Amino acid sequence: MTRTGPPGRTVTPVILSGGAGTRLWPLSRPDRPKQMLALAGPESLLAMTARRVADRTRFETPVLVTGQSLAEAAVDQLEAAGVRPGLVIVEPQARNTAPAIALAALAIGGDALLLVMPSDHLIADNEAFLDAIELAVPIAERGWLVTFGITPHRAEIGYGYILRGEELTTGVHAVRSFVEKPDIVRAESFIADGRYSWNAGIFLFRADSFLEAVALHAPAIESAARAAIEQARLEGGRLDPAADDFSLAPAQPVDRAVMERADKVAVVPVDMRWSDIGSWQALYEASEKDAAGNAVEGDAMLLDASNCLVRTEGHKIVAIGVEGLAIVAAGDALLIVPRDQSQRVQEAVSRLASRGED
Amino acid sequence: MTRTGPPGRTVTPVILSGGAGTRLWPLSRPDRPKQMLALAGPESLLAMTARRVADRTRFETPVLVTGQSLAEAAVDQLEAAGVRPGLVIVEPQARNTAPAIALAALAIGGDALLLVMPSDHLIADNEAFLDAIELAVPIAERGWLVTFGITPHRAEIGYGYILRGEELTTGVHAVRSFVEKPDIVRAESFIADGRYSWNAGIFLFRADSFLEAVALHAPAIESAARAAIEQARLEGGRLDPAADDFSLAPAQPVDRAVMERADKVAVVPVDMRWSDIGSWQALYEASEKDAAGNAVEGDAMLLDASNCLVRTEGHKIVAIGVEGLAIVAAGDALLIVPRDQSQRVQEAVSRLASRGED
Repeated sequence: MTRTGPPGRTVTPVILSGGAGTRLWPLSRPDRPKQMLALAGPESLLAMTARRVADRTRFETPVLVTGQSLAEAAVDQLEAAGVRPGLVIVEPQARNTAPAIALAALAIGGDALLLVMPSDHLIADNEAFLDAIELAVPIAERGWLVTFGITPHRAEIGYGYILRGEELTTGVHAVRSFVEKPDIVRAESFIADGRYSWNAGIFLFRADSFLEAVALHAPAIESAARAAIEQARLEGGRLDPAADDFSLAPAQPVDRAVMERADKVAVVPVDMRWSDIGSWQALYEASEKDAAGNAVEGDAMLLDASNCLVRTEGHKIVAIGVEGLAIVAAGDALLIVPRDQSQRVQEAVSRLASRGED
Repeated sequence: MTRTGPPGRTVTPVILSGGAGTRLWPLSRPDRPKQMLALAGPESLLAMTARRVADRTRFETPVLVTGQSLAEAAVDQLEAAGVRPGLVIVEPQARNTAPAIALAALAIGGDALLLVMPSDHLIADNEAFLDAIELAVPIAERGWLVTFGITPHRAEIGYGYILRGEELTTGVHAVRSFVEKPDIVRAESFIADGRYSWNAGIFLFRADSFLEAVALHAPAIESAARAAIEQARLEGGRLDPAADDFSLAPAQPVDRAVMERADKVAVVPVDMRWSDIGSWQALYEASEKDAAGNAVEGDAMLLDASNCLVRTEGHKIVAIGVEGLAIVAAGDALLIVPRDQSQRVQEAVSRLASRGED
């Protein structure tokens, strides 16, 4: 698709950067979560997210929503990438995505078009993403809450799905239903069906449309966020909502609190080589491989190793005769796991945490 | 066998500690070779070697033969283990074992009985070793060069073999021949034959008998070592042979230079749970294993891992769902290799060296 020109009006990116996952341990740590890591090239996922919407004829300067402990480092990363956020909203507490987005919608206000994006995803085909945004803008302007649905290329049980219904305009469909993470049999039937997309947590909507839906379907979130913004402190482009008020917001993901319940919800299916890099396996799949199928980053020597993901920060890794492993060294820690078992890393980190480590 | 009392006279242990192997990289490094490592318990192999002959009713204080760079650390280790060497001979250059032993024989002199031992081997059944020494003493006193032959329990292609001939006294045989490292077919035939032992480089002989044999079969070694000792500097229990003279000694192993050529060579076959710990695989075999077959040393957490050797100094290792690997972290380096391919570590280290690393 060729874009014929800038959309009718600009879009304000809202970058969510509050997360602190454990699935990429030991590279990701609480003080350096996944979005802060350069997992796919020289820049962090956060910086790549900001660059994705850097065209100022189409996008406003982004609004960053982040946590207390990460705010400074996140801004530093964006500025190093040449992006100065228009506003940095610092969540007093982590309350999941629905309250976080409500803060942004209230702070920006009016009928501004908000493009809500997690900061720790990879989108390899940004042109496809921009095209999808262009399709979504007219529908969002009409008050719909639009989600971008990822075209699935495998029967994945780790994501929720979106079933699309009638086409509203070219490439934009009303959502028939959101589907929880399925078992493998259902996931395979979804792929065969062809009308299902993965729910990637990327949205476009008007601030006012979204806040109406929050007020209707999750009023405790709306009132807590509104009070927190009314009592917020603004200084030097940083907005600190009032902690006492915000703490009353129930911690809920926006999908469950709002999207699944609202009436006018649309989906734009898009095939943009997306990955949430939710495991070492996912990072391997998103990485460039050498002739032996190895994806190597850092000081490593491989002898007859194949199909391995090797990442090291500082340590010299020598791997001989191994196959299909993820080998990751960072800080004082070292992980070795078959790639196809890398979802078990969380279990290991939980055990470490229960022993008071890491 | 029950020992009936101390042997007729004491034996002087000569501990060879000049080596600097690469097979246990990254734990062993040039400045910290295998004998300096605590690979089988809290003490280094060197300290364990000294303790093996600590009974002063049977053994003199040991003589240590070592290299320039290791001398101080080696003495420190022995003293920490409560052993003060009677003499420390510092090789001016590394010239393999024949010149090293010649230095010791010349320095100790006379008809002293010398028990020559590498410092980087493990002997789990020391009683069997002491019994074998007792058998060897009367034969060595008669001028024979005695070697201790390890009873083989597998067809190993990594060692030389000793074929025994007629029995001289109970448990002591004349050597019929030394056999180079065989191929697997020959190694299997040796095991089936029953008359073959592994050559472990442990010897008992009189200083004068040995020096006569060196003078006859390797005169350049004898003359170089003799000149180096004549011009040596002795200070505070440390003997520094003259470098210029010693540098003329051909670098040869004692087996090839002397033992294979001499006439009166005997072997005492002994089954003493010996290992040269010549690879991570060998260390695994010599280590205690847990119920899952893992031998773990250091800060490691294993989830569904089995039959692995894991050793770490300082680093936290998390290994999930892996089988049969050697995983070793030391300094800034990290090795991952299937145990049964651990002989390939040398190849990797050579490659690193050719790149100017390590």
